[in-house]
Amino acid sequence: MTEPASRTDAMRTGDVKHMKWWGWGVEGVGFHHEDKPGFAPFVHRAVGLDLWAGERTGRPDFSQLKVPASRAPEEFLSVLIGIVGPGNAVVDDLSRVVHTYGKSLRDLVRLRAGEIARTPDVVVYPADEAQVQSVVDAAVEADAVIIPFGGGSNIAGSLEPHPDESRVVVALDLGRLSRVLEIDTDSGLARIQAGALGPDLEAQLNNRGWTMGHFPDSFTHSSLGGWVATRSSGMQSDKYGDIADIVKGLRVVRAGGVLVIRAVPSASTGPSVREMVVGSEGRLGVITEATVQVHRLPESRGIYAYFFKDFDHGLAAMQEIAASDVSPSVTRISDAHETGFSLATSKASKGIAKKAQAGLMAYLKRRGWNLDEICLSFIGFEGDTAHAKRQKSVVDRIVRKHHGIGVGKGPGALYDQKKFDTPYIRDFLLDHGAAGDVSETAGPWSKLRGIHAAVYDAADSAYEEIGRKGWTMCHMSHSYHSGACLYFTFAFVFGDDPLGEYDTVKRAIQQAFVDAGGTISHHHGVGLEHAPWLEEDISAQGVAVMSGLFEAADPGGNFNPRKIVV
Amino acid sequence: MTEPASRTDAMRTGDVKHMKWWGWGVEGVGFHHEDKPGFAPFVHRAVGLDLWAGERTGRPDFSQLKVPASRAPEEFLSVLIGIVGPGNAVVDDLSRVVHTYGKSLRDLVRLRAGEIARTPDVVVYPADEAQVQSVVDAAVEADAVIIPFGGGSNIAGSLEPHPDESRVVVALDLGRLSRVLEIDTDSGLARIQAGALGPDLEAQLNNRGWTMGHFPDSFTHSSLGGWVATRSSGMQSDKYGDIADIVKGLRVVRAGGVLVIRAVPSASTGPSVREMVVGSEGRLGVITEATVQVHRLPESRGIYAYFFKDFDHGLAAMQEIAASDVSPSVTRISDAHETGFSLATSKASKGIAKKAQAGLMAYLKRRGWNLDEICLSFIGFEGDTAHAKRQKSVVDRIVRKHHGIGVGKGPGALYDQKKFDTPYIRDFLLDHGAAGDVSETAGPWSKLRGIHAAVYDAADSAYEEIGRKGWTMCHMSHSYHSGACLYFTFAFVFGDDPLGEYDTVKRAIQQAFVDAGGTISHHHGVGLEHAPWLEEDISAQGVAVMSGLFEAADPGGNFNPRKIVV
Repeated sequence: MTEPASRTDAMRTGDVKHMKWWGWGVEGVGFHHEDKPGFAPFVHRAVGLDLWAGERTGRPDFSQLKVPASRAPEEFLSVLIGIVGPGNAVVDDLSRVVHTYGKSLRDLVRLRAGEIARTPDVVVYPADEAQVQSVVDAAVEADAVIIPFGGGSNIAGSLEPHPDESRVVVALDLGRLSRVLEIDTDSGLARIQAGALGPDLEAQLNNRGWTMGHFPDSFTHSSLGGWVATRSSGMQSDKYGDIADIVKGLRVVRAGGVLVIRAVPSASTGPSVREMVVGSEGRLGVITEATVQVHRLPESRGIYAYFFKDFDHGLAAMQEIAASDVSPSVTRISDAHETGFSLATSKASKGIAKKAQAGLMAYLKRRGWNLDEICLSFIGFEGDTAHAKRQKSVVDRIVRKHHGIGVGKGPGALYDQKKFDTPYIRDFLLDHGAAGDVSETAGPWSKLRGIHAAVYDAADSAYEEIGRKGWTMCHMSHSYHSGACLYFTFAFVFGDDPLGEYDTVKRAIQQAFVDAGGTISHHHGVGLEHAPWLEEDISAQGVAVMSGLFEAADPGGNFNPRKIVV
Repeated sequence: MTEPASRTDAMRTGDVKHMKWWGWGVEGVGFHHEDKPGFAPFVHRAVGLDLWAGERTGRPDFSQLKVPASRAPEEFLSVLIGIVGPGNAVVDDLSRVVHTYGKSLRDLVRLRAGEIARTPDVVVYPADEAQVQSVVDAAVEADAVIIPFGGGSNIAGSLEPHPDESRVVVALDLGRLSRVLEIDTDSGLARIQAGALGPDLEAQLNNRGWTMGHFPDSFTHSSLGGWVATRSSGMQSDKYGDIADIVKGLRVVRAGGVLVIRAVPSASTGPSVREMVVGSEGRLGVITEATVQVHRLPESRGIYAYFFKDFDHGLAAMQEIAASDVSPSVTRISDAHETGFSLATSKASKGIAKKAQAGLMAYLKRRGWNLDEICLSFIGFEGDTAHAKRQKSVVDRIVRKHHGIGVGKGPGALYDQKKFDTPYIRDFLLDHGAAGDVSETAGPWSKLRGIHAAVYDAADSAYEEIGRKGWTMCHMSHSYHSGACLYFTFAFVFGDDPLGEYDTVKRAIQQAFVDAGGTISHHHGVGLEHAPWLEEDISAQGVAVMSGLFEAADPGGNFNPRKIVV
């Protein structure tokens, strides 16, 4: 059975929501630590930042920004306006600045410092695929550059125009293409427009009893097309798969026509063009639609918290769960540093909750555990009630075997509520002159401990090199049969050269990934940020094959040029 | 923990086993119907072939074959011999004929008719990856064509040199690279050389308690490299995944160096080069090694048989199982035609077994089932004993809901033993002047009934067109969340123009696949056989992207040219 779209018209350009031009999320929402008494002392201990003493920078003044003028010729603008209609092709400074960067730390530091070397020259908001095709054809005809834009949450430098790009740059905003077009209820497949943002997309599906199950950290401000273009992975990927597993069909507008991959469950039709588009970051064309796997909303869903004596015991349990017959929706364990951060930054608990936490810690201490080494883990279960219960009982047995203890659903529910808030903390630190950023990798189970140790060492050396007190923490998430993702957060207070210091630390961590057998990114993408390590990851011959693909598919270099491979 | 290789040396060229030059499998093994009293009457009813009246062709006489002479210049041969050593670069007629074709019906008809327009000019057997690199570099330097060869079981025309290829053609046989190099027991990953054939590979793994779980119909005579190069899928793919899911790391020898994909569980590093190599049929280089997921041998393993009233009820049950929380290792259901064939071709059962089958049929009849419409299904369960038991109980409930009945493990065990025998039946029919061939597709659950009907209609029209009495049958296998594979067998007695008649039927079926929303192949590959429909499957833009990849990656067209896209 096929259910048609709930909405029938394209969104109006004025209704397309963008994040703050200078930071994550929407105006008026931010991180506060007043209700988290442990936060300030923790930050002080970790990176030497005194949140009471320092001044918090306010919202930067847009009128002070020097925004390069649009270079779009009138004639080309008229062509675009002719396609999308007046009001849907704009050249104002704010629109162009909003479409200049993603939301990486590097992006925000540059924005706040007024460093805008190059913006798109025009932002277009097509209403449908036909308009995307006309825009693309007109842009290629004019030898302009096309950079597709979804939610703008990218942190790998996949969106910015190259500073010395001399051609006209078109930011192609997919925001108006936000509809769930139809649900094939027999097959668990939904056709969805690429510009749909996470919450809108899930709401349209949930209303009819379905979910895509894809919840990356960026969920609230990222789009389906962006997920596909960057090989995203959601926090429930253990059950639902990475976006590469979830997306079955694709429509991609290229110069002269639409590339169509039909939604078949599996095919033996040569090298996978579907898997070329996934991760292509705009270089093969503009993704306008994807047909994705959807699932009936589960009868039962719960995320449970566990504590382990140390990271080693926790990892061993996660590995055994991955090798077992059970399949939780989430397996995640924070290392000791991140556990300390989580415990310190939870809201001031009162009465019973506070006593319960104190009691738990006292109990763990009596067990002989070193509270500086304990690790907090979250494991999620979904499905029909009996299935979820059985899965949990098998997992509980494995946890006990590794001397872990379950502490119920409370912390898991909190995690579930707060899971999308992390970028706000990053911005809050930035307001106080401190870097807080993330870098993730994936590797086989046998190499995770080595990667973990290597990254800590590399970061420590880098902090020493820049002469700043630094902090590193990590969690393991996204389990697979043969390995998992390690997700690192690093922080330090900026000195005189913010981006130079940031580069030193970030580079050290990326180098440690590839040297220790991990990949340069598990789910953030390559963009400009990770491109320098691509060859060390997929080999010179691998890069040669990929470059060849881009050059052959886009001989004029019109589609988001110089991203992934320079 | 990493366990090293069990064997340390490359196999000797003399020990590399090949199939019969004129058919499937090894000399002395073939299909017999003397112990299957229902077979001959069934064949007579289905396609009008009288197995008692007709004469069976014997083994063709190799000395009667006109084998084109090798065109390899002495100088080039000396270079190759210098690399691999004397005896490992051969030009004899038998070796070159063995490496000319795969084992498709078209291949066997041509071989038996002495139609050999072009053979490889030399067959080389490198001992290791370094020798493969030297052979590849020498061949590219000499502007020769390189066609990698594994088990030679391909049925999509992926192996044959193009008839008007004027350059020297090198068949690069990977047979000596057959070792499991190491097992990463922490990660469930094994590094295996590409030339390893199914049984040898599984034996090396099983000896240490592991399995790859990949069992395509060709298992006994196909290689790991071939599976990767053609996007193979095994009959237990429901649990273990397709080869595209199983293979994590790759080593591919290209002109000038090795492309290395490290075995990480998942990565966000642009378009997937791994997924470009998978399915590339030799066009991107020579696969020498793959790191694959392996699993501990399951504690419990069983394949159970079920009967459904008709295909529609059976499909509905399979669909519900795929949407549920359980994950059997095998889900397979034959349509009424194939069920009739299976029942007719089982061995003469005696005593209790015979009575049991008769009793079962009487019981189904009393239930009001039309015995001409009943469908036989196999569902497999693996894992620890409790898990397998639970899975079965959930499946049994779903089966009952769709009015199916379980008939125990007996027929499943028989299926499990006989699952690799089908190609011998094909050759037996060919000996009697009849075509029996297969074509498979995959589609979403919502389209499977439509594809099934369309293929029957198309085949019937084609049989009418060629004026032959034809037979079509089908099973559904390889379940996924969003759909499954439909695997068709078609048969008829040849008239005056075997290949013309075969083409008419085969083309009609392939066209029905794409017209009804399926893919042109689920796991056989594209080669020359399916290339004409590629554009209708993945769109003109998809073919353009793929062609661009091949041209950029192999500008001289030295690597198995003109396969997949012409």
